[in-house]
Amino acid sequence: MLVKHSSSTVLRRQQFLVRTLCGSRTHLPKLIRATMSSKSEAADAESVLRTVTPSLDPKRHKGQAGKIAVIGGCREYTGAPYFAAISALKIGADLSHVFCTKDAAPVIKSYSPELIVHPVLEESYTISQFSEEEKRKVEDKVIGEVDKWMERFDCLVIGPGLGRDPFLLECVSKIMLLAKKSNVPFVVDGDGLFLVTNSIDLVKSYPLAVLTPNVNEYKRLVQKVLNCEVDEENAGDQLRSLAKQIGGVTILRKGKTDLISNGEIVKSVSIYGSPRRCGGQGDILSGGVAVFLSWAQQLKSDPERNFSPSESPAILGCIAASGLLRKAAALAFTKHKRSTLTSDIIECLGESLEDICPAS
Amino acid sequence: MLVKHSSSTVLRRQQFLVRTLCGSRTHLPKLIRATMSSKSEAADAESVLRTVTPSLDPKRHKGQAGKIAVIGGCREYTGAPYFAAISALKIGADLSHVFCTKDAAPVIKSYSPELIVHPVLEESYTISQFSEEEKRKVEDKVIGEVDKWMERFDCLVIGPGLGRDPFLLECVSKIMLLAKKSNVPFVVDGDGLFLVTNSIDLVKSYPLAVLTPNVNEYKRLVQKVLNCEVDEENAGDQLRSLAKQIGGVTILRKGKTDLISNGEIVKSVSIYGSPRRCGGQGDILSGGVAVFLSWAQQLKSDPERNFSPSESPAILGCIAASGLLRKAAALAFTKHKRSTLTSDIIECLGESLEDICPAS
Repeated sequence: MLVKHSSSTVLRRQQFLVRTLCGSRTHLPKLIRATMSSKSEAADAESVLRTVTPSLDPKRHKGQAGKIAVIGGCREYTGAPYFAAISALKIGADLSHVFCTKDAAPVIKSYSPELIVHPVLEESYTISQFSEEEKRKVEDKVIGEVDKWMERFDCLVIGPGLGRDPFLLECVSKIMLLAKKSNVPFVVDGDGLFLVTNSIDLVKSYPLAVLTPNVNEYKRLVQKVLNCEVDEENAGDQLRSLAKQIGGVTILRKGKTDLISNGEIVKSVSIYGSPRRCGGQGDILSGGVAVFLSWAQQLKSDPERNFSPSESPAILGCIAASGLLRKAAALAFTKHKRSTLTSDIIECLGESLEDICPAS
Repeated sequence: MLVKHSSSTVLRRQQFLVRTLCGSRTHLPKLIRATMSSKSEAADAESVLRTVTPSLDPKRHKGQAGKIAVIGGCREYTGAPYFAAISALKIGADLSHVFCTKDAAPVIKSYSPELIVHPVLEESYTISQFSEEEKRKVEDKVIGEVDKWMERFDCLVIGPGLGRDPFLLECVSKIMLLAKKSNVPFVVDGDGLFLVTNSIDLVKSYPLAVLTPNVNEYKRLVQKVLNCEVDEENAGDQLRSLAKQIGGVTILRKGKTDLISNGEIVKSVSIYGSPRRCGGQGDILSGGVAVFLSWAQQLKSDPERNFSPSESPAILGCIAASGLLRKAAALAFTKHKRSTLTSDIIECLGESLEDICPAS
């Protein structure tokens, strides 16, 4: 039955399954080789990319390759949500939405006509004169505006350019609850991690949550959840403990080597990369995780595919996004050197994915 | 009263009306050959493109190659009307207008200085405090702003990024009546189809209306008008029945194969194409239909051309736009693969048309 479809792809995916992730580190001859001291395994990001990226079937219609929504963008920040949302499209999603504040919307819209931008979030300063009851009404309206779309999304990215306004973060907490109720996966980055670190219950034990902390965000998470400092000597074990402690969410710890764990397994991605550390690369990553996670989930829900129950779409999404971002950053750096900006890396996403996983 | 205004335009439209649309399938010897099972005929889109695209005569002046207006763009959506309007220009129209809400206008303007953007439409939230009388005044003002331009347009595109605000849709209903009164053809897409499906009389028996539904929009139209479900086995016949039932409007049913009917003949276009289903491609199509329909109408009103009375500018416009979009999408896909976005396809319109129908 599988062979009918596209035997080479299926075979590749079956081979992948046999060798896959989770569980013991034996039986993973090609994809994984032990490198890190702290019980993490180097993932073969290119194989994962080839596995999760769907073939382009002309019979599919708009939306089937992924509908992503970014929750972020406020008076202060507009670049981050744009980077996350446009990256999702450039990787191959069909539709990319942004839910941001009224101030941020015209700017984010003007960056690209490809995005659907909803000016629905509110910051405290716009409601400072309101009574408590009026504020609750505004909050209900914000949540309602997001809720009517929720079921349509394959994954959310919560946090890029969100800011730290208390009223806005309160609304975003409720949006996380909505997403959980609808079983919509979400990737939390940037100021979304600030929110989550202070209210860990928002993501605790939600298996479809992915956190993508950088060095500082990771430090705060470790302090808050594990009550200790970051232990570089046992980085993999500590990450695994952290993810387990948060009830099996998936964490992608960004760094020279990206480490990924869901409390069970620990993977690492350290291929390629660029020495440029311009701001915004994390936004590409979060948008990428959302797309690849959606694709991995589609694969998993296909009864014709023998996807092992032990395989985690979130882990696969993280590995794929990390690998692709690194390859695109390396390619952009060869072209632009010290001048490399995040937009240049985004322009290299397509070529990088094509190189690993040709469209036809 | 009309004749006082601009006699040549009105005369052209009256002449057109007399000779227009509907008619038998004979007299289209070169352009069409039978292939589809369900009584539709594969159109030779390239021949149609060569037939309807005017030669570039240096003696012609601004406007003669087409003046298009898009009615769409609201607080939420700005990309769609931009895609439709800029596509019209990139295909070869001389002037492209957008009538949108005040919120949408600065954003759409910022996408391109080539467009003429009128911030005249209103959404309910801007008039929520108004009395019924005040609302009617606002409505009259909106209609008046569009009406003073109406006679100048060769074709409207109604719907891209229109949204579903009740007040706005009420105004758009009136704009459709204006267009009909002035014999200005219009293409209805996106939320314009939502409006029309719920008020089919808005387009019924107007031979200059073209509807361009996608899978879901078509399903709703069939349910509403024919009181049944979509019948894929007899797709061509059902489309013909639907178009006939709506009094001979032209319908372009988008899909893997595009099917086109005016209640008499059924044509299909399935050449080229790309497997990418990123949002916005339907907007290119609607802008394209507007231009090619205008050009076909010009041809038909030219006494020196032996245009068969059975030939329908609306049908020719649909065939030409479908063929060109597919070719441009295929070309963009060869360049950008999975990263292909709607803007990339728009950038390929010129090269694709040039390839089929060289400018000199």
